[in-house]
Formats: sequence, structure tokens, C-alpha cells
Amino acid sequence: MQTLRDIGEFGLIDRLERFLPTSPLVIEGIGDDCAVLRFGDKQLLVSTDLFVENVHFRREWAAPADIGWKAAASSLSDIAAMGGAPLFCLTSLACPADTPTAFVEEMYQGLSSAMSRFSAVIVGGDTTCTESGIALDVIVIGETVGNRCLRRHGAEAGDHVVVTGHCGMSAAGLHALRHGHDVPELVLAHLRPTPRISEGQWLCRRTGVHAMIDVSDGLVQDLGHIASFSYLGINLMSETFPVPAVLSRYAWENQCKPDAFVLHGGEDYELAFTVAAAEANAVLDAFHHEFRVETTTIGVVTDKWLGVRIDGEPIEAAGYDHFKNAPYTQGDE
Amino acid sequence: MQTLRDIGEFGLIDRLERFLPTSPLVIEGIGDDCAVLRFGDKQLLVSTDLFVENVHFRREWAAPADIGWKAAASSLSDIAAMGGAPLFCLTSLACPADTPTAFVEEMYQGLSSAMSRFSAVIVGGDTTCTESGIALDVIVIGETVGNRCLRRHGAEAGDHVVVTGHCGMSAAGLHALRHGHDVPELVLAHLRPTPRISEGQWLCRRTGVHAMIDVSDGLVQDLGHIASFSYLGINLMSETFPVPAVLSRYAWENQCKPDAFVLHGGEDYELAFTVAAAEANAVLDAFHHEFRVETTTIGVVTDKWLGVRIDGEPIEAAGYDHFKNAPYTQGDE
Repeated sequence: MQTLRDIGEFGLIDRLERFLPTSPLVIEGIGDDCAVLRFGDKQLLVSTDLFVENVHFRREWAAPADIGWKAAASSLSDIAAMGGAPLFCLTSLACPADTPTAFVEEMYQGLSSAMSRFSAVIVGGDTTCTESGIALDVIVIGETVGNRCLRRHGAEAGDHVVVTGHCGMSAAGLHALRHGHDVPELVLAHLRPTPRISEGQWLCRRTGVHAMIDVSDGLVQDLGHIASFSYLGINLMSETFPVPAVLSRYAWENQCKPDAFVLHGGEDYELAFTVAAAEANAVLDAFHHEFRVETTTIGVVTDKWLGVRIDGEPIEAAGYDHFKNAPYTQGDE
Repeated sequence: MQTLRDIGEFGLIDRLERFLPTSPLVIEGIGDDCAVLRFGDKQLLVSTDLFVENVHFRREWAAPADIGWKAAASSLSDIAAMGGAPLFCLTSLACPADTPTAFVEEMYQGLSSAMSRFSAVIVGGDTTCTESGIALDVIVIGETVGNRCLRRHGAEAGDHVVVTGHCGMSAAGLHALRHGHDVPELVLAHLRPTPRISEGQWLCRRTGVHAMIDVSDGLVQDLGHIASFSYLGINLMSETFPVPAVLSRYAWENQCKPDAFVLHGGEDYELAFTVAAAEANAVLDAFHHEFRVETTTIGVVTDKWLGVRIDGEPIEAAGYDHFKNAPYTQGDE
């Protein structure tokens, strides 16, 4: 009998999409980071992210406030990926009846801090018990700015492929937690990621920026979505991958390949986008001036193939698939 | 150490509400069936309902399509309770990687049938794996009709308390499933409840209807919310409780009290509302003419006490509290 492990997360989404009806009110439905929906004179953005104990977090490694913060950041980042503004949050919480009240309060303090930081408020939700394990679903409702948003499709051949900040830090932080290595900068990147809300809105307003995604499942996998939704290819240039000193030192000390973290590590919530070659310099200069956040041009969009290659060579996708990958509890190196 | 079992679901909600910030865009936040939110020229309604295996359903008793339908009905009913119109649905699904693909497809067919029946479409969501057990969070986004909605507060002393259809059928259906009794009408009420979307919208437009809730946790408990949110009391008249023949026969054959099902059984998703005495007859006549659905006046709103009493006598609340009650897996009679 075929199971979800056989078809994977994206296979399941494809199959459901095939028979689920849609409506003229739906601008972007199943498949992108957020749903984009017509609502009166404005456009709604809605994202959900379900955080499950021992899949997305472990109580030994993360304080309750960290768990709340990160669940919030993950859902907010889907709004950032479209260039939208978050407004409201709802949560559905399932946990065992013997969960300490203080644990739940602190988790919601972390969640609320992240929402407040990005001007959203928690407006409701649901609570229920489970036999074991905590699950927290975070729903963020936002709006497009000026009825415009960036999506996964829309990349054009010749576009530069750009990523903000540093990918791989969160995955290295998880590696450090798992192996008991004390590297606060990496652990913080894993436990307290910052969604790029203002940066996403800014990029959405710029001429020449064509497609965008947040790096939640790994750079190669997420750029693969831009490529496949745009029916184009992406050529990454290996000599350009940004590897901060703390990450290269950690990888060297632990005999890991830094590129594995950078290319396939998820949960950094950086933004990856494509920008017309003619506009690229102006956009990146202005971006740096506005945010003091590093950007790196790591490749180009091409019509010569479909999917993501490195230096022209096909690569095997190794990002995170919930049903195909081993859960968080098990070693994955 | 204090746990959620000590403070219960409503104690937790009270505590979280105390420190969570709000915003002028929030018309109704934490505490009512839906959040009611200003959004452009319209008002958003948002509800979430998290369905957890062995808490809300058991795979032995419910076909996958039943599970999807009921999860949808439960979340849609929160929109009905405010008199709103559902538009969009998102789902977050957590399940083990060895879940058969066909199971998930059938569950979504049930979910989608319920959404289509009430003119809503599934527009996105999240999927993730768990170590064991399925959890399905159903988020429904709707709108108020004419920027008006009914809430839990607003009942007035002297109002009649009215309930649609028959409460207790679902709880009796669960009892029948648990004890292996073949009573299709009751089992169907448990597995395939119908949210009262059109009825809710209609009631919301009528003058004299002051407060409304859907019966999800048990009639006494849910009317208790109307009473406490309205700072008033409710007196239920025991001789009026509607008990359909199939329910009284089942209760008699199984030596149960039918009133226990009617007063404390949840998940019927009927509507309970209060209506000014002077308007009550006209409203109920017109309602019956419109929907051919039975309504029963079961009590009155009073300013003589707070909370719900039966024939003037205080009763102990016995509705469902997720953290205080035994889970679905265990016997609860």
C-alpha cells in the first residue's frame, strides 16, 4: 500500500491540489508560501505552520519561549516571502494535560514577542489535549502592500539569483545542539531566527525583482521551487556561496562540509529572490543602504534547463521533506 | 507544579488573554467562537479547530472522509455561530510517514465536500510528519454579512433561550460507537454533523436576536458562555428539553438518562440563541417557515443570578474541557 513516505510532502500536495476546487477569489492557492485571497478592496495573505515536538523542536534543546518564537518566525517568514505585512495570528495548541501551565505561558510569551516585533497580534485559536507531545499550529493573516506581492513564479532567464544574510547557520546550530557543542552564535540562529518582513516588503516594491521565496527547507530545494514554478533553470556558482567564519570554523572542527549546511540546511528564513540583471546592482546597493544586511549573488536564471544546477552540473535535491526525511529525533548526518 | 489539568482549557485561555496585547483592528479576539477583525472595508471572521486522533476521533469508528467532514463542520460551525459566511479554508496536517496516501486523500475529500457544501474552498496549509497519531487543524476564514455578527455577549434579561434541532444526538452516537450498538441515526449525527450556516446568517439579520453560540461542548456549558459574557443568568425549564424518539429509546434501552446527552453532550453544532420575548414568536415562526428546522424555547435569561440553572436550581457544569476531561479513548460514563 502506498504511503506518504513513498510520495513525499510535495507529492501529497500535488495529489490534493488535483481534486480540490478553487474559486475566482483565490489569487494564489495551494503551493506557494501563503494563500493570496481577494477580500473586499484588499488582498489577504494567510500562512499556517505546524510545529510538532520531536519533529520541529525538542524540549531539551529549546526553552519554551524559543519554541514559541520560532513557530511564530516560521509562519511570519511565509508572509515575508510574498512581501506582505502581518496583522493577526491565531494558534491551535495540542498538548498533554500534565503540561506545566508555566511552560505554555512562556511559549506564548515567545510567540507574542515575535508577533509584536512585526506588528501582529494574537486574536484567537483553539486548545486541545493530546496523549503525548506538543503540537502548535501558528496561523498568520496579513495583507499585501499596495495589492502587490512576490511569488515563486515570475523569474526570467538572465535574472540574477540573490540570497540575503547567511544560509546554513540554523542547520549548523541544530548540529551543535545535537552533538553538545557550545557555539552560541549558531545555536541562536537555530532557536531564534528572524523573519525578513521589512526586507520582503521593500523588495516587493522594487522594479526588477521578479520572484521570491523564504529559505525554510534548504536553499537548493527552495530555489528549486522558484525554478519549477517559473519553468526555468537556475545555475548556482559554487565559488560565490557565502560562508561566514563561524560556520566554516565549525564545519572544519567537526569534519563537515560547510556547503552541505549552506545548500541544504533549512530554517534560516533568509529571502532568496531573482532580479533582472540590468537592475541588480542598483537594487542591491539600495537594499544594503536601507538594511545593512548582506546580500550575495549566487547564480543566474537560465532557459537552458529546468531545475537547479551548481556550476552547470545537476545535483540531487537534499532539502527537507517531512515524510521522506528522518525526523528531528534521529541523527541525519 | 501547576498543570493544564488543574486550570482547564478556559483557565488557560484566561491566563493567556491577560498578557497578550490586542489592537484596534480586533473587534472580537480571544474568547468567542471566531475572531472578528477589521480588514479594509469588510470584517474578517477566523476560526481554527484542531482535531486530534484518539481525542476527537478514532480510526476504528470513523471512515477517513467522516474525519475530514467532521473537522470541517466543527470549524465551519464557529462561523455559523457568529452569523457569518465561510469563504476559505486552510489545513495543517500532521501524520506519520506510514499513513496510506489513500487515507489522506479520502480525508480531504470529506473535508472538501463539507467546504463545497457551504461555498468555501481549500486554499492552502501545511503538512508535516509526527511520530504517531494524526492531527488536523482546520482554519476557516469567512466574512460578516453586512458588517454585523452575533456574539456570546448581548443577551438581555427576559430574552427567551432557544435551540435549533436536537442536542445530545452526537453524544448518544459516540456512546453507541463505543458500545458497539448499531443505531445509524445516532452514529450519523456523531460522524456527519451539519453546521447551521444559513440558519446562523438568517438569525443574525433578525431584530430581537441578541446573542448566539454553537453547541460544541454541551448545551449547559455553551449557554454558560452566553450567560457569563452577558453578565446574566439563564433559567432552563426541564420540561421543555427536546428529546427525539430515537434518543429517548436509546437511553431507555441502555439505562442512560436522556437529559445527560441533551444537556452535556457536545458536537451537535446546533445553534443556541437568545431572542427578545416580544419578538420570539415572529422570529421562530419565520425561521420554521424558512428552514423547516425545529426550534425549542428551553429557558429564559434572568438578572437574578449569574450562570445557568435548571428550574431555578444550580447545576454542576459537566460539558467538555479538554484538559480536565478524560480523552475520547477512555470510557466516560
